[in-house]
Order: sequence, then C-alpha cells, then structure tokens
Amino acid sequence: MSSQLLTGLPVAKNLRADTARNIKALSGTGVVPKLAVVLATDNESTAWYVRSIVRQAAESAVHCDVVDLGPQASGWQLQEALQALAEDRAVHGIILQTPLPAGVDAAALAALIPPHKDIDGANPESLGRLAAGLPAYAATTAQAAIEVLEHYQVPLAGEHVTVIGRSMVVGKPLAQLLLARDATVTTCHSRTKALASHTKASSVVVVAAGKAGLLTGAELHEGSVVVDVGTNVDEAGRLIGDVHTESVLPVARALSPVPGGVGTVTTSLLMLRTSQAALDTLVASGQPV
Amino acid sequence: MSSQLLTGLPVAKNLRADTARNIKALSGTGVVPKLAVVLATDNESTAWYVRSIVRQAAESAVHCDVVDLGPQASGWQLQEALQALAEDRAVHGIILQTPLPAGVDAAALAALIPPHKDIDGANPESLGRLAAGLPAYAATTAQAAIEVLEHYQVPLAGEHVTVIGRSMVVGKPLAQLLLARDATVTTCHSRTKALASHTKASSVVVVAAGKAGLLTGAELHEGSVVVDVGTNVDEAGRLIGDVHTESVLPVARALSPVPGGVGTVTTSLLMLRTSQAALDTLVASGQPV
Repeated sequence: MSSQLLTGLPVAKNLRADTARNIKALSGTGVVPKLAVVLATDNESTAWYVRSIVRQAAESAVHCDVVDLGPQASGWQLQEALQALAEDRAVHGIILQTPLPAGVDAAALAALIPPHKDIDGANPESLGRLAAGLPAYAATTAQAAIEVLEHYQVPLAGEHVTVIGRSMVVGKPLAQLLLARDATVTTCHSRTKALASHTKASSVVVVAAGKAGLLTGAELHEGSVVVDVGTNVDEAGRLIGDVHTESVLPVARALSPVPGGVGTVTTSLLMLRTSQAALDTLVASGQPV
Repeated sequence: MSSQLLTGLPVAKNLRADTARNIKALSGTGVVPKLAVVLATDNESTAWYVRSIVRQAAESAVHCDVVDLGPQASGWQLQEALQALAEDRAVHGIILQTPLPAGVDAAALAALIPPHKDIDGANPESLGRLAAGLPAYAATTAQAAIEVLEHYQVPLAGEHVTVIGRSMVVGKPLAQLLLARDATVTTCHSRTKALASHTKASSVVVVAAGKAGLLTGAELHEGSVVVDVGTNVDEAGRLIGDVHTESVLPVARALSPVPGGVGTVTTSLLMLRTSQAALDTLVASGQPV
C-alpha cells in the first residue's frame, strides 16, 4: 500500500481564492482588512512564522501591523497593546504570538481579544463559543487540520478519530471541530497509557504532541489517515513532525506531512478570516457591499 | 461480583459542610450570599428542580430569588433580566434555567452571565476558561459527576474514560474536567458507531445521553465504574437514568445510580459556589474575612 500525501498547498490556494473574493467585495468601500500581530519574543522560529504572515498579508492585500514589544515586555505592556487594538475600529484581526515572556499569563491576555477579532482563535471564550455552536474562530492550526481533511474528503461523521495532544492551540479546539462533524473523538496525551490501543482503533489520527517520531506505523490500523501537526526541529535544523514517516507510509492510506501539510494552510486561513472579519464589520454597519 | 453504589448523599453532605464554613466566614460582614434563578417555562420537572434549589438555599442560609418570566417570555425580556442581575452587586450567582421558550438562543443568553457569577457554568465562556485552566465554574452536573468520582477515590489519571453525550451541560465540560485530571477521554454520542468498542475498553464510563436503558452490561468491561447522569421518566412517571441497572450491576465494580447519585449533589454544589462567589467579592473588595 502506498500513501496519498495530503499536501497543504491546494488547500491554501482555495483559501487564497476565497480571500481574493472578499478583497474584491471590499473594493471601493474604503475598508482595508487589517491584521495586527503582537509579538514579545526573540525566538527565531516565531520570527520566521511572523515573516511568513507578513508576506502572505502582502500577497493577499491585507494590511498587517507587527507590534513588537520585545522579549522583555511586561504583562501590563501586553495588556495595554491588546486593549488598544481591541478598541481600534480599523483593526479587524488580532494575533497574540507565542511564546510570551516568562511569568506572563497567555490565556488571560488572549481573553482580552474580542471574539470577533480573534482570528487566531486564541481567546478561551472562542473555544467555548465554538463548543456551544456560536459564531467563533477556532484556533488556526486546528481549523487548518480540518480544512485539509475536508479538502481531501476524508470521512469524519461516525468515524473514530484520535487526537494526540490536549493543547489550547490544537488538541482541544480540534476535538470540538471533530465532534461538530459527528466524529467519535478520543483525546490522548502524555499521560495516556497504551496509546496504540486508541490509535489502532481509529480511522483518522491527528498528532499534535510536539514529539518527533512519536507516531509509528506499529500504532496504526492499516488504511488509516494520519494528519501530522507536530513542529519539531531535528539535529540538522530542519522542521520535522511527530510522525515517523518511514514506518507510517506503508501502513497509512494517506498522510498529511510536515513540512508541506497543515502548516502551509495556516497563514492563508488567517488572511481569509481577516478579510471576512472586515466584511462582517461592513455588514454590521449596514453599508452595502 | 456485586457493585458498590456510589450514592450522592455523602458527597452532598461534605459540600454542605463546606458551604456552612463559608457562611460562617461571611457572618458579621454584612454580605449575604444571593442566588437568582431565571425561569421561563411551565415544564413540570423544571418546577420540581427549582423548588429543590429554593429548599436547599433555605437550608444553606443562601438567599434565593426566583425570577419567573413565564413560558411566553421573549428573548428580549430574558436578556434584560440577565443584564440587570449581571449588574446587581448584591447577586453572587445566576442560574438561567432550561428549557427556554422556543426560538430563544440559550447559548447567546447564557453568554450574558458574567463568568464570576456563572455558578451553573452555563456561559460558553466558562467552558473555554475551564479548558484553558483559567478560574471558571464547570457546568454543575459535570462537576457533580467529578465530585462523586473523587469522593469514592475512583482513579482517573492515565485511565481511559468514555463519556456518552456531547451536550454543553454534561458531556463537553466533563471531557475538559477529565482531561485536566489526566484521563484519556473518548466522547461518544448518537452518531457513534460500535459504542461497545469504546465502553468495553474503558475503566470508567459516564453516560449522559438522555436515553433510558442505553448502557447495558454487555457494553462494559468487567470491573469498570459507571456513572449514570441520565434523566428520563418511565411509564410510571418515575425518574430513571440511562443505565440498564439489572445487567450493569453484575458487571460493574461500582455504579452511581439514578436517582440517588449525581443529581443529589447538584443543588448542594450550587449553594457552595454561591457562598464561595460571595466570599470572593469580599476578598476582592479588600474587606477582612
């Protein structure tokens, strides 16, 4: 059996086309979609990610401000910056980039982002609204995993899906998105005993544990679909996922790889959401679009 | 094998003792814990439940106001009532009782209850905060199930727990509470195929599907622990759970029954939370307790 690769690029292209449609709908209205990225770290991989957001924004005709408070920023400075952006009517989307300085409460800060501007889905309220079926942005990476699965028409309703990882950025929101699609969902994590007993019983496995090589072919049911959401760096400095590719490829029916999978989709999703949030404010203001 | 019955009364008694301690700590401060129950139905079982809240409040020295808007209440009237209670500094806890009149958006209304007064855990924001590890009240019934499991020292960390039901009042918050206790959690529901494959692999099964007789002994692993959170009414008008008791008792190591289990704990938990919320406002005001 050879695996199909569920690559992110075709998914991202569709999202970019949707964004272009939104931008076109906004032309002549005077509204320019604007995204603000709040940053307080000198972490190199974060800097890399923020550059890719800025690049994608430029390509999408979305205005992007990077508010870099530096790695010494206090919780108070972050709070002030987020509150100002929350009130700024010209800003449609706010991203609070992690990691944050030590001792700063990320969840409490994310709670300052109004749900309608929370295009990265970082505010815990967004997760609650998502679970309740209210309008809300799911955490970007979780939504990107769903976009990949749906683009490649992987069945979810009635299927058993195992999610490895219980973070607020992937595992927890992804479980809600899968439940909303009628999947039976098992959430595994570092304290799970006998991981294979869950993954072997699943038709879809999404791994977001941040542990290179965690998921091998021995843990899988023949013909299952695997989505890798891990981001690790190997000794050579290359980005690798949580999947042990060599052993998984002969067993899985399909694999969304790292790099080239879910990660490719996230920045395009952020632009689509920012353009949509801008359109929503226009609709709310009663201006014809 | 004969099952241990995990009854709610000893759990409720402990919670009431904690409430009494809070009430004692409040004496002489001028603060009287106050709970408001907003009601808009003539449903008989709701009326029965609200009477039990009122009775428990009287026994606990918690002030309780029932704001009955009648079964014809509009969403607008409900919104006004909730906003007034949200602003009323004398009110420490707010319960929005379901069912609500047809066409009214329960989740949107519950979102009007400030998290610090949301002692029933109905606001979707409370679920999000719970998932993020921020201070929050979990939905009462979900927390009551945890109180029962912890009182009887049922191991949860590293265990596989299956939750049957994905509602905002039990299944979804319960999954978060279990994950926070390091359980591996599978959420099943009406669209789940092969329910037994999940429940048979679990050491703890919590059933909150609202379907009488749904869980039989044939679906269980010998020696597992079962918590029944179902509330159904049989032909004779008696309250029965989701567990098929006759077949489950010979297989399960322990069963929390209906009636007499989790339901017995909920009103006591509401009083404990109201008294705690009153204490919290006092602490926040800087007054010595």
